[in-house]
Amino acid sequence: MTKPRFRELRRSYGFDEVAIVPGDVTINPEQTNTEFEIEKLTFSIPIVAAAMDGVTDVNTAVLMSKLGGFSVLHLEGVQTRYDNPQEILDEIAKAPTAEVTALMQKVYSAPIKDNLVGERIQAIKKAGGICAVSAMPANTKKLASLSVEAGADIFVIQATVTTARHVSRSYRGLIFSELREAVEIPIIVGNCVSYGACLEIMRTGISGVLVGVGPGAACTTREVLGVGVPQVTATMDCAAARDAYLKESGRYVPIITDGGFRRGGDICKGIVAGADAVMIGSVFAQAKESPGRGNHWGMANPHAALPRGTRVKVGTTAPLKQILFGPTSVTDGSQNLVGALKTAMGVCGAATIKDMHKAELVVAPSITTEGKFWQIARST
Amino acid sequence: MTKPRFRELRRSYGFDEVAIVPGDVTINPEQTNTEFEIEKLTFSIPIVAAAMDGVTDVNTAVLMSKLGGFSVLHLEGVQTRYDNPQEILDEIAKAPTAEVTALMQKVYSAPIKDNLVGERIQAIKKAGGICAVSAMPANTKKLASLSVEAGADIFVIQATVTTARHVSRSYRGLIFSELREAVEIPIIVGNCVSYGACLEIMRTGISGVLVGVGPGAACTTREVLGVGVPQVTATMDCAAARDAYLKESGRYVPIITDGGFRRGGDICKGIVAGADAVMIGSVFAQAKESPGRGNHWGMANPHAALPRGTRVKVGTTAPLKQILFGPTSVTDGSQNLVGALKTAMGVCGAATIKDMHKAELVVAPSITTEGKFWQIARST
Amino acid sequence: MTKPRFRELRRSYGFDEVAIVPGDVTINPEQTNTEFEIEKLTFSIPIVAAAMDGVTDVNTAVLMSKLGGFSVLHLEGVQTRYDNPQEILDEIAKAPTAEVTALMQKVYSAPIKDNLVGERIQAIKKAGGICAVSAMPANTKKLASLSVEAGADIFVIQATVTTARHVSRSYRGLIFSELREAVEIPIIVGNCVSYGACLEIMRTGISGVLVGVGPGAACTTREVLGVGVPQVTATMDCAAARDAYLKESGRYVPIITDGGFRRGGDICKGIVAGADAVMIGSVFAQAKESPGRGNHWGMANPHAALPRGTRVKVGTTAPLKQILFGPTSVTDGSQNLVGALKTAMGVCGAATIKDMHKAELVVAPSITTEGKFWQIARST
Amino acid sequence: MTKPRFRELRRSYGFDEVAIVPGDVTINPEQTNTEFEIEKLTFSIPIVAAAMDGVTDVNTAVLMSKLGGFSVLHLEGVQTRYDNPQEILDEIAKAPTAEVTALMQKVYSAPIKDNLVGERIQAIKKAGGICAVSAMPANTKKLASLSVEAGADIFVIQATVTTARHVSRSYRGLIFSELREAVEIPIIVGNCVSYGACLEIMRTGISGVLVGVGPGAACTTREVLGVGVPQVTATMDCAAARDAYLKESGRYVPIITDGGFRRGGDICKGIVAGADAVMIGSVFAQAKESPGRGNHWGMANPHAALPRGTRVKVGTTAPLKQILFGPTSVTDGSQNLVGALKTAMGVCGAATIKDMHKAELVVAPSITTEGKFWQIARST
Repeated sequence: MTKPRFRELRRSYGFDEVAIVPGDVTINPEQTNTEFEIEKLTFSIPIVAAAMDGVTDVNTAVLMSKLGGFSVLHLEGVQTRYDNPQEILDEIAKAPTAEVTALMQKVYSAPIKDNLVGERIQAIKKAGGICAVSAMPANTKKLASLSVEAGADIFVIQATVTTARHVSRSYRGLIFSELREAVEIPIIVGNCVSYGACLEIMRTGISGVLVGVGPGAACTTREVLGVGVPQVTATMDCAAARDAYLKESGRYVPIITDGGFRRGGDICKGIVAGADAVMIGSVFAQAKESPGRGNHWGMANPHAALPRGTRVKVGTTAPLKQILFGPTSVTDGSQNLVGALKTAMGVCGAATIKDMHKAELVVAPSITTEGKFWQIARST
Repeated sequence: MTKPRFRELRRSYGFDEVAIVPGDVTINPEQTNTEFEIEKLTFSIPIVAAAMDGVTDVNTAVLMSKLGGFSVLHLEGVQTRYDNPQEILDEIAKAPTAEVTALMQKVYSAPIKDNLVGERIQAIKKAGGICAVSAMPANTKKLASLSVEAGADIFVIQATVTTARHVSRSYRGLIFSELREAVEIPIIVGNCVSYGACLEIMRTGISGVLVGVGPGAACTTREVLGVGVPQVTATMDCAAARDAYLKESGRYVPIITDGGFRRGGDICKGIVAGADAVMIGSVFAQAKESPGRGNHWGMANPHAALPRGTRVKVGTTAPLKQILFGPTSVTDGSQNLVGALKTAMGVCGAATIKDMHKAELVVAPSITTEGKFWQIARST
Repeated sequence: MTKPRFRELRRSYGFDEVAIVPGDVTINPEQTNTEFEIEKLTFSIPIVAAAMDGVTDVNTAVLMSKLGGFSVLHLEGVQTRYDNPQEILDEIAKAPTAEVTALMQKVYSAPIKDNLVGERIQAIKKAGGICAVSAMPANTKKLASLSVEAGADIFVIQATVTTARHVSRSYRGLIFSELREAVEIPIIVGNCVSYGACLEIMRTGISGVLVGVGPGAACTTREVLGVGVPQVTATMDCAAARDAYLKESGRYVPIITDGGFRRGGDICKGIVAGADAVMIGSVFAQAKESPGRGNHWGMANPHAALPRGTRVKVGTTAPLKQILFGPTSVTDGSQNLVGALKTAMGVCGAATIKDMHKAELVVAPSITTEGKFWQIARST
Repeated sequence: MTKPRFRELRRSYGFDEVAIVPGDVTINPEQTNTEFEIEKLTFSIPIVAAAMDGVTDVNTAVLMSKLGGFSVLHLEGVQTRYDNPQEILDEIAKAPTAEVTALMQKVYSAPIKDNLVGERIQAIKKAGGICAVSAMPANTKKLASLSVEAGADIFVIQATVTTARHVSRSYRGLIFSELREAVEIPIIVGNCVSYGACLEIMRTGISGVLVGVGPGAACTTREVLGVGVPQVTATMDCAAARDAYLKESGRYVPIITDGGFRRGGDICKGIVAGADAVMIGSVFAQAKESPGRGNHWGMANPHAALPRGTRVKVGTTAPLKQILFGPTSVTDGSQNLVGALKTAMGVCGAATIKDMHKAELVVAPSITTEGKFWQIARST
């Protein structure tokens, strides 16, 4: 009997398994620069609020702009299906756990109203905010043209998994390169997790890529579909695609890593893994200003036949400004995210986000295990 | 002192440690084809209900056929030992945990009645179902001939571990190739977990192989005997044997991976690992129609001297049809298994089960660890 | 700066991380032979009861002999320090957890009585048992001669870590080769965990080696000293030493793996890892006949200044005979240990213990993790 | 599409994942020598009490000296900010968990009083103790000169991460080589975790290096910043730097490994990993004499904007002398640390600390996992 060639599986890594190694040079955190660019738009912090209904509405979008980052308003969420979305959001917040998914399936089956799409965008622009909006691929053509008309600054096409080559009999696949021609504002596409998919998406000419499938706090894709790549590996692979694409085209397409960021340390690791910016959901759902009232859920949760996610009660902790910039007396890493990033850049000797890409990560035993001994003591 | 050559151990993987990587192409889930063939029989879904008394009786066997898969009726279980098996099943369901194994040892020591073998098979056939039945190797000769006579469609020979070469002084070993000659219906043999054992079984001419030792929810083989190979590795190795056998013989012998499938995601991973179909126990024990009344146990549980397994209270959740096809409001992956498979095939760009064999798996930190942070929140 | 050569650490394995792969041939368990030899003594089962005061006294030593294995009576325990040891054992059994170590330190500071050494040995011999006794290296010369005189069959020299080359200023080191000359009965020496230490011990001419430092249920050596090698790796390395020594000398010195065996599956794994026999503590402490009354502790526990271990309440479950041979209705692997071994040998196609050494082990995710999902259900 | 070169991550190890392999020779623990030197100062035990306000004050510094090691008094803690520090320490001890970080932020914003710096140092010297003091880099110039003047024996410069090349616009970076010239007493610098950073620090001429970022019991740097290297790997890498520096310069600069030591076994592992001495925080916070009254926190906890750590209630267990030298009836490794070290050196056949550097470590499943089965039993 000839010896078989066994199939080898590659090891992948999530946040809890890696740690950042300090550099041989350190710099003063105040001298670090956290700027992040999408085409001609420059943001002072590399942080994006997720297109989730518990996180982003007109109000928080304006606030995030003023704080230096931006929010993405989901055009297929409650904001565009209901004239008074807060009523619906309150209903979701109050629903018992056992009934909430069924409620959300009903809530999200109401039609999207074209007029609300325009109104929400204009409200953000009128208040002086950068307006980024998102849609699923199937509705992109229509919603993108409505958005541009209303004055949106960035258009995001987002599904659980998006590729440059989608096969469908029911509708003619969305061709990103055609869309790129038609739409004048920056286009961000996601999510993807692999080198190949990311590279192909970049080659269509779009402006940015969202990275991450599965690891978010409100996401159960990995349980339901078995699909997902841990976020550190996904980010490293897509960063490799970005660097390869830069080499072949001369164009630098930023990647925004999206999913599962819960602490300042996670954000720092996402950047070291190669991300240009980080998309945040659950931590921002904890902000005082957030529409979810301390609740958090993803846009795949309300799927009519195969919901993938849950409403997570994350609680309300602090104003968005304090979550981003502190000061704080909280020691679990959930506040002063930008302060944490600048401090980590300091100990890595990284003056810019691109410098931070060169820092070293090691695989380390998970924090939880390491800290077990004193866990009880800590919670006393 | 000369340096010793230390014995190296190969790493093996179970479901919780791997994740499926999305493809560079995606396709619409509705365009995926999940067909599965055993010789001339074609099934529209690659799902088989296990030969377990809490899962399969005449009624569920007929139902599974209508839904596109098939069930295996165990010819050495309560269905053929008792005229009124439901009475016995109810007794098992009601027994206190501390007494249930002893009760089962007694229940399963009653003799198998030849007439019931025929009656159960004919009942399934009369109702229009595909009838698959199983027996242990020692009773195969007798039960196989009774089954063929009664009209069974598929005969399954199943023990914890089955090989093509069994050494016994007490009875002449079952020779699969001889049985193959004698029995005209497709024969499935299992369970095995290694390349060599699988390849040897295929060479006897049988029609399909069951893969898996140890990981089932109701199985404690690994605790009791120390024997078992995690299901992803077992499936990959036996798939390699199938491919090698196809190359040497031109004949494609499907493998059915069996053991420990608890969520849609597990099924998707089993297929990506190389399985042609998946045998399901505990999740089907949760079906409203299941004979176990929300209880689940394996056929090795009632062993008279060395029981290996336990009765697991899995509860009753939904009709079998909903477990298979949804729609659902449950988000833990235990319902809409076929929808999950088709969606995962979509994100992997796999039009058929054989395409899905080419998708990539990565080793990933277990879901449980990854989700720890929000576990409490989720359960609120 | 030149790149440093980082120190590499070898990975080692314990029971929970490995699983036995079934063979390509299977044999009927009844045809397996579990015999084990130490010089001219042959035992029908490869199982040894540990030299622990909660496990072995005159009564259980006689019983183990009759059941086919043997027990080791510790000559530095309560049996030789007290005329009425059961009184003391009862006191230990009843002591509150917080006070038990201090109590044991006191109990074990009483002097060893020479006359009791002889009496215990003679009592075992009179009842027809094989009599194996043990001592620490420092007391070996005196106790070995008393033992031989009283009729002991096997002498065991046991300390946490024993080597052939011990450096001491306070007493002239025990020279095993000299002892070998002086003592006519088989000598077993332990414990060791590495290839080199095991090989050197074998070269002194002794009759058997005990393998294992740290992993026992009642042992905290790894916490207190940081010292220990997981049992599967320790056994594999010492088995390699045995095989190397056989090659160089033509003499086969059996190794007895000792520490942390809690289930039938662990014993099977220990044998596959290369052990000729298995020493068992905690599982035998559960026997109805055991002197510890359902309590278990090691001989390093009562150390006057640095106790390493704890009294573990293991409870009382079944007669020793049932623990060894069943039948049982317990499904966690703690009973019918020999039945489990013979069944595992069957699925590995191993007719003898030496055949079983050739079976394959794979590294597998720990049972605990794998079974998490149903844990709650199982305990209902 | 060309195959990308995926970025590889190096595996790193913490205490719970490694174990010490006994040697092929053993020696009597009483014959081991645990001496440790910093320039001309020799200590009989390689143990240093941390510069933490719950651990070190004048009283414990004197006591540690008498016991053979030394303590480091933090010159930026409560001892130099308050005339009556015990009042403040009691307030911290009594504060509710939810308020303690905010309280500490306030407490540590009081100014450092120059006169107290001198008084504390003189008090230690007057009582006959070795006086080691520490400061952060920004305050080093001033505090070092005050310290030398007052008679300190060792000066420690300590921050979360310290490098030989710090970039700052706000103050002229501290040049260690200049400081070395100016200050006549031994200088210890830390913390660092990598080969490169450690080697560069040694090249500035300083006398010792502190190793460790992140793993301490009272430290949440890894959660907040994502930064940290598990202690075993950090120690091995810095030991490699020490050995490389010895080769290039002929000067042996000891490394003191600092962070996360909770048991005797951890200390033994730290030494085997290559440390010349071990800095201890939480375990000493448990001493009866400790100023924290059973509470423990790090010097990064009270950071005004981004606190990294928590007050941990560790309780009060025994006098410092008993924690160091026993005897004890505690079996979890938290007492008789020196006894444990000498015993471990004995089983490794190591007569000196430098011999102990040559012992072998293996990667082993974590103690917690291994011991799970009996955990409940043990706690009964």
